[in-house]
Amino acid sequence: MKNIILDDTIVALSTPSGVGAIGVIRLSGSQAIDISETLFPSLKLNAAASHTLHFGLAMDGKEVVDEAVVGLFKAPKSYTTQNVVEISCHGSQFIIQRILQLLIKLGARPAKPGEFTMRAFLNGRFDLSQAEAVSDLIASESEAAHHIAMNQMRGGFSGELKNLRQKLMDFASLVELELDFSEEDVEFANRPQLISLLTEMQDKITKLSESFRLGNVLKNGVATVIAGRPNAGKSTLLNNLLNEERAIVSDIPGTTRDTIEEVLSIKGVAFRLTDTAGIRHAADIIEREGVERTMQKIKQASIVLYLFDAMEMSAADVLSDVKKLGNSDNIGVILVANKTDLLTEAQIEAKFKEIGTIHFISAKSGKGIDELKEHLYNAALQGATMKESVVLTNSRHYEALQLTLQNITNAKNGIETKLSGELVASDIRSALSHLGEITGEVTTDDLLGNIFGRFCIGK
Amino acid sequence: MKNIILDDTIVALSTPSGVGAIGVIRLSGSQAIDISETLFPSLKLNAAASHTLHFGLAMDGKEVVDEAVVGLFKAPKSYTTQNVVEISCHGSQFIIQRILQLLIKLGARPAKPGEFTMRAFLNGRFDLSQAEAVSDLIASESEAAHHIAMNQMRGGFSGELKNLRQKLMDFASLVELELDFSEEDVEFANRPQLISLLTEMQDKITKLSESFRLGNVLKNGVATVIAGRPNAGKSTLLNNLLNEERAIVSDIPGTTRDTIEEVLSIKGVAFRLTDTAGIRHAADIIEREGVERTMQKIKQASIVLYLFDAMEMSAADVLSDVKKLGNSDNIGVILVANKTDLLTEAQIEAKFKEIGTIHFISAKSGKGIDELKEHLYNAALQGATMKESVVLTNSRHYEALQLTLQNITNAKNGIETKLSGELVASDIRSALSHLGEITGEVTTDDLLGNIFGRFCIGK
Repeated sequence: MKNIILDDTIVALSTPSGVGAIGVIRLSGSQAIDISETLFPSLKLNAAASHTLHFGLAMDGKEVVDEAVVGLFKAPKSYTTQNVVEISCHGSQFIIQRILQLLIKLGARPAKPGEFTMRAFLNGRFDLSQAEAVSDLIASESEAAHHIAMNQMRGGFSGELKNLRQKLMDFASLVELELDFSEEDVEFANRPQLISLLTEMQDKITKLSESFRLGNVLKNGVATVIAGRPNAGKSTLLNNLLNEERAIVSDIPGTTRDTIEEVLSIKGVAFRLTDTAGIRHAADIIEREGVERTMQKIKQASIVLYLFDAMEMSAADVLSDVKKLGNSDNIGVILVANKTDLLTEAQIEAKFKEIGTIHFISAKSGKGIDELKEHLYNAALQGATMKESVVLTNSRHYEALQLTLQNITNAKNGIETKLSGELVASDIRSALSHLGEITGEVTTDDLLGNIFGRFCIGK
Repeated sequence: MKNIILDDTIVALSTPSGVGAIGVIRLSGSQAIDISETLFPSLKLNAAASHTLHFGLAMDGKEVVDEAVVGLFKAPKSYTTQNVVEISCHGSQFIIQRILQLLIKLGARPAKPGEFTMRAFLNGRFDLSQAEAVSDLIASESEAAHHIAMNQMRGGFSGELKNLRQKLMDFASLVELELDFSEEDVEFANRPQLISLLTEMQDKITKLSESFRLGNVLKNGVATVIAGRPNAGKSTLLNNLLNEERAIVSDIPGTTRDTIEEVLSIKGVAFRLTDTAGIRHAADIIEREGVERTMQKIKQASIVLYLFDAMEMSAADVLSDVKKLGNSDNIGVILVANKTDLLTEAQIEAKFKEIGTIHFISAKSGKGIDELKEHLYNAALQGATMKESVVLTNSRHYEALQLTLQNITNAKNGIETKLSGELVASDIRSALSHLGEITGEVTTDDLLGNIFGRFCIGK
């Protein structure tokens, strides 16, 4: 960690840029309070208690730059464990820039992305997987993503992993010790106990790894495309799916919905429906095959809702269309028959009995929409439940766990086949290292730069 | 004020929407602390001191919605003089919406635009012109606009106006009293003293009104168009003017420059240069006259920089172009000769001696640019100095002052020509009413709705 300097004072705007009622500028470091006292000459911040708020005038010489409220968090009772000052100023870009410039002139340095959270991690406030969850939490757009990020930020699986790693580390030191006495052929580490621990770890890691697919769905949402021939009722279905959702959001102030995709939330899971134009386009393609770009969208989707007109289409037409959608294993195609209010159930069943599972809806009346949502939800989760207590969402963690699993399996095999202690010790060392990367006991500047570089500035 | 309810608790996001490290949700009202205590069950906010910060968990039943910091301002020591709670949560739109929804469920009501500041005004925290300055301060984009808004928010001219109004009100009650005794022909109000006060007010108001033009320039910036024939060097001049400015801004983090106009700041005054494409277009027009839209831009400008090539152009060419620019009194045309590094001073002087004041620059080398900026600044301010202590920027104030001035002049004339006391009293009443509208002693729901409706939500 030698390249990372912790004792200077960093500053950044922590609220989104743009005009708002207030903006919050955050300082962290040993000089945070002194610098703020210079900016607010009327305030005696060094003498004040931690966790207090102070109304003061930010001055540039004799000029009042702003009337602001200063929040004080004294080390170690702060986010970074350092002295932290938060200045709530008027939310004018001009004022914010002036105050940032003044603080920099007074000795603060512009913070890098995620640098506040990196300091919190490096000062032991939380482990690396928790720090990563802070970023996930800020980016969370659905109940499920929020739930998982919050769970991970508050400990999640890292306690269990750290516990297992500690146990393995105890064994590792005994195994290493044996190497020093290798000519005497002693066994300090109890082999059956070590095998048992490694087996336990294999199980835990396998189970955690299996939750990654679900975690990805919950964190990133489910790419969903509505396909179908023109006039199948795709727009009406889209509106039907989104309708209720829109009504919920619209009466809360401050909501801006400027997303390119339409996001449908079903029981907290986000389904990312590509925009209507795209969907319409994608649909036409079933007739006019081969337009690269739209087929690409379908290929990237996790779920394709194939909608067809139950009156107009024959079972053979539907099967032919579905065939054109491609049959990648990753894509679940859900067949949805529309306009079923114009036929009797018996008629529909007779007509499409050879195709298999079909969902019958009337996009116009809304019949069958709730059942379709339920089915979408189940298709996305594939049997898992959303409130799963431990879910893996981070591909870095997933990769480290896969490597750990390989090391542990090797070590276990090595012991069982009486391989040399050197080789077993080496596998265990690798396992410890990969496990440690997840929670941050083992880090490099590159790794940290990579992780925190993706944070927003001011966090 | 009977339609305005002050005793419910309002809530809004006070920071800009968008993803950021933190978002601040503000509550104000009698229930603000109780509602917050329900959201943060672990915090004893009612028992806590004012101006303190509390780390807590925002809960929805058993679910942790966020880890947040709660800032407490107890009545009357707050912005609105009511109980105010500020919740700093993670800056995820999902979390912010969840918390807003929970607070509304717990009894808070979404705040209207500017409602916090309106409460501050109605509760006597500051007068109406100061409240309006809060909005100006947030919108301020230049040093000059910031300086004026800050000055006005901190008192500005309103103290003086209130003082004069109070004196006039004292006289008014005496004049009204005379009306009750009209048959006895008594004079309670000393006429020479009243005339003297009215004269003083005329002078003050006239001076203040005269500052409105300057105030407008300082607050809104100066619409500036660079015109000239193709290849006169307009883009190079634009870049030259903006260059330094850009360099200053770019090394401060969090700056977003997504304005459509280019803004050049000269000694704190903002010159709004219409975008280069527009300028180029405007320029071509001098040759291909009559394209409505671009001439419109020139007509809306306060200053036109007419740039010409000192080598290529004759004095007659220049005069002909300038004539086409129109000669509205509102537009100052500044003649700028470019490429003067290719001629000697004597040659240039001889060539253009008949035209009048010309600024000589070399857009390529930057020669003469500083002098041009100085000239632009002086042309915009027309002799006023930017640090003028009292400057009028608000057209509502300007209009109210014009009406006041008319009333006062009428009253003065009435006294001098011995008009009936009724008429004089009526003029004085009108003057008091118009003056009172500026600082808010006299308001209507409509007026307040109009003023605060233009604020952002959360302020």
